[in-house]
Amino acid sequence: MNSTMTPIGTMRTPFGETGQIPKGPDAKHETDGVIEVDPAFEAGLQDIEGFSHLYILWLFHRADGYDLVAHPPSDDRPHGVFASRSPQRPNPIGLTVVQLLRRNGPRVHVRGVDMLDGSPVLDIKPYLSSVPTADIRRGWLDAAEERRRVEGR
Amino acid sequence: MNSTMTPIGTMRTPFGETGQIPKGPDAKHETDGVIEVDPAFEAGLQDIEGFSHLYILWLFHRADGYDLVAHPPSDDRPHGVFASRSPQRPNPIGLTVVQLLRRNGPRVHVRGVDMLDGSPVLDIKPYLSSVPTADIRRGWLDAAEERRRVEGR
Repeated sequence: MNSTMTPIGTMRTPFGETGQIPKGPDAKHETDGVIEVDPAFEAGLQDIEGFSHLYILWLFHRADGYDLVAHPPSDDRPHGVFASRSPQRPNPIGLTVVQLLRRNGPRVHVRGVDMLDGSPVLDIKPYLSSVPTADIRRGWLDAAEERRRVEGR
Repeated sequence: MNSTMTPIGTMRTPFGETGQIPKGPDAKHETDGVIEVDPAFEAGLQDIEGFSHLYILWLFHRADGYDLVAHPPSDDRPHGVFASRSPQRPNPIGLTVVQLLRRNGPRVHVRGVDMLDGSPVLDIKPYLSSVPTADIRRGWLDAAEERRRVEGR
């Protein structure tokens, strides 16, 4: 069962090339951007201002095919694509948690963007709850960080 | 720019009808389920066992069209669809955070499912970090809960 997705808007970010986007375990995502929602969908934003954080679902529109084995910049070992944030995914959907700053009509200003300028937006959802930090295990990422620390890289 | 999504697997949950799924602000999501990944994509699961929590991106496959104004069960007032978790979204993608229990080959056992049995799965991503609970504002949901509390509903 295939499904066709139609963007509801476009991301505006300062990142024109993937190399400009902070990557890896120590990356800080504090860059401001704008979700430019198509005016036809603006009514769907009603009351979004009350939420502090949002999920943005967007398309890796420059990804070219997929690879089930990912080679993340944060490790020198390969990992399954579903255990990574690689853009080369079977369904090239990106997921970013952002802080909502303000809304001007169909323009939603947010902090914490990590996608290319012009990325098509598929959906926006309210961020409602968190997993307690103490409960999160980060798998190979923690192991890779520990190896880099020990090796002084 | 449209994009075609092809499921990578199917959810197995105890929920045959939407009415069986716990909904609303007090809903506990502690139900176990299985992500049945298509064996063709099993290599993409390598090293996923190390993560405590996962994002599942899935399709609201029974949703019929969309409505920019949602009428959530948790409130008696309407809200924009992007400020809600309504299945009637322009792109009917569901997003669920689950706890990973174990993996048997292409079957990933998880806790915290809230989707119908048979829902197509589009993507799986590691859950890496949380917004501190104290920083989260829940917009109209908090206001609706407060009204229900005051009105004794």
